[in-house]
This record gives sequence, structure tokens and C-alpha cells, in this order.
Amino acid sequence: MDPVAPTLSAVPGPSRRAIGVDLGGTNARVAIVDDRGQVSRLTRVRTDSRPTVVDLILDLVAEVRESGTTDLGVGVPGQVSGDGQRVMSAGFLNLAGTDLAGKLAERTGLRVVLDNDGRAALTAELAVGAASGARSCAMLTIGTGVGGAIADRGEMLTGRGNAGQLGHLTIDPRGPVCRCGRRGCLEVFASGTSLHRMACEAGLPTPVDAFALLDSAAAGESAARAVVARWAASLRAGVDIITALVDPELVLFGGGLGEAAARAVGLAPPGSSWYSTRTAPAALGDTAGVVGAALIALSA
Amino acid sequence: MDPVAPTLSAVPGPSRRAIGVDLGGTNARVAIVDDRGQVSRLTRVRTDSRPTVVDLILDLVAEVRESGTTDLGVGVPGQVSGDGQRVMSAGFLNLAGTDLAGKLAERTGLRVVLDNDGRAALTAELAVGAASGARSCAMLTIGTGVGGAIADRGEMLTGRGNAGQLGHLTIDPRGPVCRCGRRGCLEVFASGTSLHRMACEAGLPTPVDAFALLDSAAAGESAARAVVARWAASLRAGVDIITALVDPELVLFGGGLGEAAARAVGLAPPGSSWYSTRTAPAALGDTAGVVGAALIALSA
Repeated sequence: MDPVAPTLSAVPGPSRRAIGVDLGGTNARVAIVDDRGQVSRLTRVRTDSRPTVVDLILDLVAEVRESGTTDLGVGVPGQVSGDGQRVMSAGFLNLAGTDLAGKLAERTGLRVVLDNDGRAALTAELAVGAASGARSCAMLTIGTGVGGAIADRGEMLTGRGNAGQLGHLTIDPRGPVCRCGRRGCLEVFASGTSLHRMACEAGLPTPVDAFALLDSAAAGESAARAVVARWAASLRAGVDIITALVDPELVLFGGGLGEAAARAVGLAPPGSSWYSTRTAPAALGDTAGVVGAALIALSA
Repeated sequence: MDPVAPTLSAVPGPSRRAIGVDLGGTNARVAIVDDRGQVSRLTRVRTDSRPTVVDLILDLVAEVRESGTTDLGVGVPGQVSGDGQRVMSAGFLNLAGTDLAGKLAERTGLRVVLDNDGRAALTAELAVGAASGARSCAMLTIGTGVGGAIADRGEMLTGRGNAGQLGHLTIDPRGPVCRCGRRGCLEVFASGTSLHRMACEAGLPTPVDAFALLDSAAAGESAARAVVARWAASLRAGVDIITALVDPELVLFGGGLGEAAARAVGLAPPGSSWYSTRTAPAALGDTAGVVGAALIALSA
């Protein structure tokens, strides 16, 4: 395991602490998190480093567990049951239908709650991050794909368990076919994969460094300007639609390309003054998932 | 005033009753509604029949008020403040900035709560209508324009006060300019106004009878088929986007064209099996607004 620089904090009074786990496609993270969102013992491991996801999580928990910890929250890249116990679908992790919370509870003696990883990240941003104090917020997670979550009146939208699929807003019904089967979803224009493809097509250097690309565009380099303008326009179209539907106080950009995307979207004005809202980068970086998962466990 | 056929109900036990008012662009409605959603003394009057909206509502309240009624709910076609006291914007009613609840409370001695008319209608459908038993539901109101509301876990989304502008989902970024300033909103393809325009352009008889149009299309009449296919496709595109974002158990179609729209959308399959959801007509017709306004007042 790679220990990641922990944010050790002096806790002024007694606080409740939980273990947060964030299951990603490539890396899984674990940390101890207190009820103020302070992180300690943050550790990362490759997702494929253990034969099963259950083994992986058990090892992560063993790594950080301390006396008195009774709660474990796990953020899953997919859909979980309404009671936070079962994984309903989780693409690449091959966990669909698993009573993951039950298995982990049996093996650890901890109280276990699962939630979607996007909702976990937004929970953390609302509690102690860039959306602190907001009651309504949408978060677009810009990475290999585009995900997200929506909060209203401080609560996460769930729908049937799959609310917040913000990558699958239709941006252009004549656009390329998306992996979901529809055409022109936000994901096919705004993801890191798409940004890479657009840069390739424009003859720009790859792999893409999004900040270097933004700087080249700002300096007037025409190929970079064209790619950034298309990226910005698709991000803005997504923000406009989200604003029409859920009218959030702000829209956060998280994920590996979150900061760059927040800068890019500022280059494209809202399609109408009716639907302007504040946009900002997420604040917690790659700790949002573990913090949110632990906070959800503490409040369950 | 035109008395409308009332739904008089034998109430089996003691129940709480409130006055509900639904302010529309053309007509305003008032009724006594009990906490089970049973309606009595439903009355309708033209919105322009009194010099001010306050006078109009006072007359409506006087018409139906009975001893023991302490609560008044008013559905407003626009945005209200988070505390349900002030009108923030209400287009044609010229009420922006008004402490409408305060004025009405002072003049009637009733407790007064305002809410958006789309949220009031969905509140009623969730409580005693077509979404009864559902926890998550979106409602598209298809009339002169297209409005709506969204509920998740039984609660209405509010955002900054303006959530649920479902008429302003982008369906086609190259489409006609909408009154909101953006291009290709759902409203410019799916409203009654748009259906009328499409029928005119296709040389079909106007004013449009939506059910006759659907019947002609079903019988294979080519101009009708083309118009209905375009209408259905735009409604379906809206449902797909709503489903990606909020993943509701069902999407209801209300408003004057609600039943026809629910039939039309059934003709266009979801853009992807990922985002299929149930669609249905709303059940309460033009009483949804008064019922919802009263229920909101009773639960305030």
C-alpha cells in the first residue's frame, strides 16, 4: 500500500470517527474520518491488488482500524439499494446483486453503509468542502467519464437509486453514440476521454495536460482555442440543463479534471440569464469520496 | 363566478380542512379541501375579473369560507420565497416582490402559505392522484407552455425557488429560439402552442384537437403521423433527460394536453434502456392545483 500524506488534525473535543472507503476503478482509498470531516491515515491501494473486492476492503479496514471505531462507509461506483446494504450495479467491479454491507459487517463487526461514490463526494463537499453552507448543489465529476450527484435542501437526490447520471444529459441529439445507447450525451463531449480525442484530432500534443491546453487557448493558439471552446460549450450546456431542472445555488466540478473544467466553463456564458448559477471547482480533491462515505456512515 | 360541479364527499371522521386557491393565467380556482384531498365547493373565476389579485383571492376566499377554516394555500404561476410568504416572480400576474401571504393573512385572519403552482399540482398527485404511493416523480405540465415539478423521496425539489423548469430542457441546440433566450427548449417543441404551429405547417385543421390528431395518426394519415411523431419524440427526449438526472419512478403528464401527451410519448421508445421509466397521465385534472395548495397549507 502507498501511504498518502495524511491530514492529521488536533481534534479539540471528543468526536465520533468512522472508516471511509472509496472504491474507484483503478484505486481504492481508505481513511479514518471524524464527524467534522477531518481525515487521518489516508491510504491508497490499487483496486486489482486483492482477489476480491471484499478482501480488498477487509485489508483496507485492517490497515486503519482503531479501537472504538464502530462505523464503516463505502462509496461504490454504481447503484446501491435504498437501505445502503446491497450493490445493485457497479460496472467494472462485478459486484451486482452482492450483499456487500452484510458480508463486510459479518467479517468486521462494524456497522456498514454503502452509497454511490458521486453522492459520497457531494456529501463531503456540502459538509466541509466547496459547497459548505449551500442547501442545493449539483456536482459534475469530470474524469475518464462524467458522473455526478445532486443535492436539494441539503439532501441527496436518489430517485430509484440512480439519480445524478449527469454524464447522460443530451447535449446534441445528432452527436456521437454514447455507451448508454443514446446520442450526444454530455459524457461524449466533456469527459477526459473526449478532451483527449478532440486534442488528437486537432493535432495537439497528447496525453493532454488540461491546464496547459487552457493556457495555450488563453495565449491565442488557434487549435487549442477551438478545442477549449468546444469543451467549454458542452460543459456549459450541461450546467444550463441542470440549472433549468434543479436550480442549484452552485454547480461544482470534481474529479481529476474538475479544476480545469471549472476554469473552462467560465469561458462560455450561460445560454440565458434565466439560468445562470455559480460554478466552482470542488475543494476536497481525491479525499471527497472517503470523507463522504464516512460521514454517511456516521449519520446513518 | 361559475360554480363548477363539486365533488362532495361524505367525510367519515373529523378531518382538517383548508382553502386552496390556484391562480392561473386565465382562470383562478378555489375550493375547500380536506386532509384526504377531498374537494368541495370548487369554484372558478376569470383572473381578470377583479382589479387586483389580492381582491380576487379575497372574493374567492369569501365565497367558500366556512367556520373553523384556519388555513389558506395559494398556488402561484411563478417563483415564491423559501418561506412561502412572498412572490418572487410571476410573469403575467404582476406580483413580483409582493408579500402576498402577509396581505392575505392580514385581510382574512387565516394562516397563508404560497407555493409554485406546478409543485402544488404534483403535491396533489403524490398525495391522492396518479403518483399516490410513489416517492420520486416528475410531472410535465403540457398546456400553452410547458412547466413541471420534481419530487424525490416524497419532497418537492426547490433549488433556489425555481426548480422544475422542465419546459426549458434543451432538446435540440440548433432548434428555434425559446422565450427564455436559449435554443431548442422542450417548450418550443412540445407545448400546445407548438403542436398548433406544427399542425398549421402540415396543413392540418386548426384549432388542434390533440386526440383527433392522435387518432388520425393511428389511422395512418401521413401529415398527422409526421406531426405526432415529432411531438412524441420531443416529449420522449424530455423524459429521457429527466430520467438521467433524477431517475423518478414515474413521469406524469398534466395540464390541458396531459392525457394526449401521455398517449403520444408512448409512441416513442426511450432513447436507451438505461433510462426507461413509467409514464402516465395525471389523474386530478384541473383540481390538482387547489388540492395541492390546500394540502401544502395543511402540512405547513
